[in-house]
Amino acid sequence: MRMRLTLAYIGTRYHGWQIQAPDKASQTIQGQLEKALATLAAQPVRAFGSGRTDSGVHAAGQIVHCDMADERFVRIRDWRHALNALLPDDIRVLEVTPAPTGFHARFSAIAKTYRYQFWQERGFTPPRLLPFVWPCGPVASDIMRMALHELLGEHDFASFANAGTPMACTVRTILAAKLTEEAQDPLLPPCLPLLTLTLTGTGFLKQMVRNIAGLLVALGQGHLNIHDIQGFLASKNRAQLPSRTAPAKGLTLLSVQYPATEPYSDKEQS
Amino acid sequence: MRMRLTLAYIGTRYHGWQIQAPDKASQTIQGQLEKALATLAAQPVRAFGSGRTDSGVHAAGQIVHCDMADERFVRIRDWRHALNALLPDDIRVLEVTPAPTGFHARFSAIAKTYRYQFWQERGFTPPRLLPFVWPCGPVASDIMRMALHELLGEHDFASFANAGTPMACTVRTILAAKLTEEAQDPLLPPCLPLLTLTLTGTGFLKQMVRNIAGLLVALGQGHLNIHDIQGFLASKNRAQLPSRTAPAKGLTLLSVQYPATEPYSDKEQS
Repeated sequence: MRMRLTLAYIGTRYHGWQIQAPDKASQTIQGQLEKALATLAAQPVRAFGSGRTDSGVHAAGQIVHCDMADERFVRIRDWRHALNALLPDDIRVLEVTPAPTGFHARFSAIAKTYRYQFWQERGFTPPRLLPFVWPCGPVASDIMRMALHELLGEHDFASFANAGTPMACTVRTILAAKLTEEAQDPLLPPCLPLLTLTLTGTGFLKQMVRNIAGLLVALGQGHLNIHDIQGFLASKNRAQLPSRTAPAKGLTLLSVQYPATEPYSDKEQS
Repeated sequence: MRMRLTLAYIGTRYHGWQIQAPDKASQTIQGQLEKALATLAAQPVRAFGSGRTDSGVHAAGQIVHCDMADERFVRIRDWRHALNALLPDDIRVLEVTPAPTGFHARFSAIAKTYRYQFWQERGFTPPRLLPFVWPCGPVASDIMRMALHELLGEHDFASFANAGTPMACTVRTILAAKLTEEAQDPLLPPCLPLLTLTLTGTGFLKQMVRNIAGLLVALGQGHLNIHDIQGFLASKNRAQLPSRTAPAKGLTLLSVQYPATEPYSDKEQS
């Protein structure tokens, strides 16, 4: 039985989603989840995420798939409860559903939505919000919205990708982008000095959202000129982007989008 | 120069306010604060809190005093900024003001206000709220409000005090008590399934607020009868209270009240 899981986690304590080394598996979300799954399955289970989240990055709707022996899947009535009882407090399973065999958390995904939160008050951030915001100080959001408009659509985002695994293709499409003064978080009231960036794209290069966030703040604080954005894109070179990568803690993977009608049904596979 | 500091902290990582052993000072809020103060003062500084908060208990307005050499106090222009730069992220100084020599964070206090947060949804608590709420499940708040009314005013709260330093007197006065369905927290929207207990009293015995919170939940879940409350109080014996002590993480020290006109001015001291 293929299982599809929706996860929320606070990334602060972890070295990202992906297991880096077997002896440090417990420092990753994947490692913690695989340990809980293995306990319930009574054998090792591999969990596949929709994508890596970096060290310190959070998730409100990470999607994961794994395979479980049918009799094991049936025996445990409440998978969500069973997994949450085994997982640390800062990783929660929101939903567990059966999935078609062809469903793949990463390869079936058609788009992802990320949120980045800026805290605009200088001097003091409430301790409860510190792990979730970049306290960048006041920024001019109108300029940032104009910049965001320039980045919408299909572009070669090579200059927004930090060094990592070389990519054959660095063209990505930003399908939707908004910057709102409202918190856009069901756990927060709308009136705080928060600025929230929400980006939906067909895919994102390594630290691309954080590089966009960093560029927006540099623009919003008057350190860069909006007319230079097309030049940054055209350079296809991260070294040409003069702004810093925004800190991981402000970033949350909100959701992963899949085709409304699964094209990967069991029938099509057989 | 006597300084008065207002502190907010997330208690999760700490063994409470008070230093227990010199070699484990950094595991306490007091230890962290004294280290930051010593760095700025270039000599050891003792910090006096309004009272201990237990391991895992949070604060939104803990009050602390300490003494600082006059020239040192003047030399550092922005004490809040300087201290926050040295403190860990989960401890924040909200305010630093000069105080009269006679001001004592603990002995000048006339009342304290605590908040306890219950999470009423069964099964799932958002990871971001878990360190701050007791996920006790659904409770009947009307019964709990009636019980709270019984506890208002002056009582011998011995049966609500867990074992600790023996107290000469266990009579305390609860000046105000309310239980609200609204979040009562500026960082949270009002619509969540939160139930918030706010208690103001002349003083609280060891884990008294958490024992009251535990009793309220036992009543709200139908495990106890409201008519037994006077009996629990009259027994003056914790062993007679059948409910558990509510977990530390739901508790926050909100504020400490001092006389509006400081009776401890420098003039009166000299």
